[in-house]
Amino acid sequence: MAKELKHLTKRSDDYSQWYNDLVTKADLAEQAPVRGCMIIKPYGYAIWEKIQAGLDKEFKKLGVQNAYFPLLIPKSFFAREAEHVEGFAKESAVVTHYRLKTSENGKGIVVDPDAKLDEELIIRPTSETMIWHTYKNWIHSWRDLPIKCNQWCNVMRWEMRTRPFLRTSEFLWQEGHTAHATYEEAVEEAQTMLHCYADFVEDVMAVPVIRGEKSETERFAGALKTYTIEAMMQDGKALQSGTSHFLGQNFAKSFDVTYLNKDNKPEYVWATSWGVSTRLMGALIMVHSDDNGLVLPPKLAPIQVVVIPINKNEEQLKAITAKLQPAIDQLRELGISVKYDDADNKRPGFKFADYELKGVPVRLVMGGRDLENNTIEIMRRDTLEKENVSFDGIVERVKDMLDDIQRSVFEKARKMRDSKIYECTNYDEFKERIKDGGFFLCPWDGTAETEAKIKEDTQATIRCIPYGYEQKEGAVDMVSGKPATSWVIVARAY
Amino acid sequence: MAKELKHLTKRSDDYSQWYNDLVTKADLAEQAPVRGCMIIKPYGYAIWEKIQAGLDKEFKKLGVQNAYFPLLIPKSFFAREAEHVEGFAKESAVVTHYRLKTSENGKGIVVDPDAKLDEELIIRPTSETMIWHTYKNWIHSWRDLPIKCNQWCNVMRWEMRTRPFLRTSEFLWQEGHTAHATYEEAVEEAQTMLHCYADFVEDVMAVPVIRGEKSETERFAGALKTYTIEAMMQDGKALQSGTSHFLGQNFAKSFDVTYLNKDNKPEYVWATSWGVSTRLMGALIMVHSDDNGLVLPPKLAPIQVVVIPINKNEEQLKAITAKLQPAIDQLRELGISVKYDDADNKRPGFKFADYELKGVPVRLVMGGRDLENNTIEIMRRDTLEKENVSFDGIVERVKDMLDDIQRSVFEKARKMRDSKIYECTNYDEFKERIKDGGFFLCPWDGTAETEAKIKEDTQATIRCIPYGYEQKEGAVDMVSGKPATSWVIVARAY
Repeated sequence: MAKELKHLTKRSDDYSQWYNDLVTKADLAEQAPVRGCMIIKPYGYAIWEKIQAGLDKEFKKLGVQNAYFPLLIPKSFFAREAEHVEGFAKESAVVTHYRLKTSENGKGIVVDPDAKLDEELIIRPTSETMIWHTYKNWIHSWRDLPIKCNQWCNVMRWEMRTRPFLRTSEFLWQEGHTAHATYEEAVEEAQTMLHCYADFVEDVMAVPVIRGEKSETERFAGALKTYTIEAMMQDGKALQSGTSHFLGQNFAKSFDVTYLNKDNKPEYVWATSWGVSTRLMGALIMVHSDDNGLVLPPKLAPIQVVVIPINKNEEQLKAITAKLQPAIDQLRELGISVKYDDADNKRPGFKFADYELKGVPVRLVMGGRDLENNTIEIMRRDTLEKENVSFDGIVERVKDMLDDIQRSVFEKARKMRDSKIYECTNYDEFKERIKDGGFFLCPWDGTAETEAKIKEDTQATIRCIPYGYEQKEGAVDMVSGKPATSWVIVARAY
Repeated sequence: MAKELKHLTKRSDDYSQWYNDLVTKADLAEQAPVRGCMIIKPYGYAIWEKIQAGLDKEFKKLGVQNAYFPLLIPKSFFAREAEHVEGFAKESAVVTHYRLKTSENGKGIVVDPDAKLDEELIIRPTSETMIWHTYKNWIHSWRDLPIKCNQWCNVMRWEMRTRPFLRTSEFLWQEGHTAHATYEEAVEEAQTMLHCYADFVEDVMAVPVIRGEKSETERFAGALKTYTIEAMMQDGKALQSGTSHFLGQNFAKSFDVTYLNKDNKPEYVWATSWGVSTRLMGALIMVHSDDNGLVLPPKLAPIQVVVIPINKNEEQLKAITAKLQPAIDQLRELGISVKYDDADNKRPGFKFADYELKGVPVRLVMGGRDLENNTIEIMRRDTLEKENVSFDGIVERVKDMLDDIQRSVFEKARKMRDSKIYECTNYDEFKERIKDGGFFLCPWDGTAETEAKIKEDTQATIRCIPYGYEQKEGAVDMVSGKPATSWVIVARAY
């Protein structure tokens, strides 16, 4: 298709539309013809692959092994853990038949009524039930523990309101499921994974997060504790970016999984589960990007450096290419992904806009005058600053710039976020200010009633009881006036 | 669980049972509680991950990009390409509802009849229909071509008779889908991918394959040509290990995908698709392994070298460990995966048997006497040959041995296979000899009738019209006596 410059809606005009535009126009994803599902396009998927590879490496360092469990879960399994089924029943995709056939009139294809399953199968919304059914066969003695399995897979939750990456009926994720001999070890594992997620999201995705614990209302269905990382988008709304659950002995009891302890006595096994999904793509996009398009931290950019020659003719192109090639080779040897775009069917202006839209961190441009003067233009995507510099030492300069961009985008996001974290103890003030977004650090009496009232009045929810923020004593709940049990982060969320 | 030595059925007693035993006892996979589905256990999955990573690298070298398309396909899409739906309708898992609810009596969970889908959704058995629906939006002009997308995903085909890895209702695979401007380019792509698969399977999996083209009967539903790689198992049966399809313009026509050529005229797009699956695990297991367990080519072994100390006491263990550590470190620096197993809760004899069962290519054992004598025992899994050698130069020795094992297992498999390829022109002889397995190179008249008769009489099928085998002229079909149009490989198959 003859490509056109693709303008985005401005963030200040309509943040939500800007996001949708960006997802589509930067070739990240598109709406699928199945309600609420998306097609992740090659450029979007290349970013997801980097997230996946990076996390997988961290998991393996922590002794986690990958495995694969079935997509379909018998309905009866699903029903065994009461809270769990309560949490997922309303959004279950159900397989009821296993065959199609030609219709009576021979003109269409219909479900074969003779191929009805005895028991319906649910497309996994998460795999605790299947995995704990399996662990029963794997776990007999304390010697078999701990078990730490993870799977990278697709899951399905029939969501009513969907948005690409942020909330889709089918999404890609990883789900880790661990089994332990003791309460303490399981809680520690859940915490370890929380920090594993947080460190990765901050170091690699350059997205600052608040780590904390969910309130009871917001816990995963079947968990005793849910830990979370919460990121702030540019509009001040929260995005829950990863969760880690301490499941206690709930699933072990539902699936009768016991082990013989060192005294040869049976005990129920302790569990955790933890997951991050393609939702992280949403965080990545919304935290860093601007009105010109994506801004990607170099560690996740499929193309880290684009090099564009500007030439009058074939001969000049050859000379420019010859000049650039050694630098390109050296960058590649350093493990930096470089695209040399000398395609002659697009104007430079189009290319500039397109690579900006796609968030390529560093752009190098060399024209005829640069060739004469031994110079090159270097631009960084995050600030759009460009400079004409000597060609000598360009490799080192690019390398340093990539490191600097990685740091800078994180710092920018952190400053933005920190400027929108407000301590607030007055409910009227809260109700007024929440309209403009931001994270509100508020004293809470620990009751679900207060939580429900806040949500009803303002659509905001308790994101977490945060770590690393002072839990000042003696405060009272801003809604009920009762003594606070903790300070919590309250925000509207995606 | 207190581990016991796990004896396998011998191949000569019951090859099929030997395979099932091995899959289970080497911790590769187990039967799932959903009919025909399997759980891929961590050790099995670690091998699959290596296959996946290796192939993915090759695909990317060929300009293929990964993407992700939805799991669920609307029934109407599915029905658009007539041969395609004919091929897959009988084994489709169908989603009809999107919600569960508590039953009337409050005691169970039932499908909510109010949540019936307007149109049923099929769990993808393969994604041509979804992808060609999508390509319609991606392809407008010759400038948009070629497109080369691949996805790694799960698919579901409701098979009646299943066996772990070889044939399961759900399996993991990759499916590549390419779009081209010309017939020639698409055929070339399908061929390129065939050779990509064949080279990988031979070089990395050490499984020799015959490359060739399928007969019309055996083609993929919707393809004009299907290319295949066929491997021979130790019982002389064939395993189709990967296929690549030239789809012509069938899907482009069904989904109305045209492009404007350089003369600005619309033309239908030409297509290929190609896939390999967890079935490759079956080939890997059945080609190399023996009555003691798995034999893995080093390039795919999750653990390439296991090092086991044999010590009388803690002090001696320390001394042995200190002696071994530098060699272990050096091996790891060379990128070789080494497991040092000094666990004291298992006897050496158990460890030996277990690592043999799991196919670890090289085993090193050091005891007290070795420590004194500066020696070490080295064993290679493929031949079970062991030797007591000087500890000096052990790193180099291990490295060379791994290379040698990789070559040797391929050669052994190739020789075994070649010894069971028979030229055969007499049908009575064929019917007698096919009972003992093997690939029969036979003249064929090119008709489906002959093919059907062979299958009916012997259960054998035409595996392919092979490349690299002489197509002698003047032969007659062994069944019909009519002039042969080609020589084909006939065999029983998994």
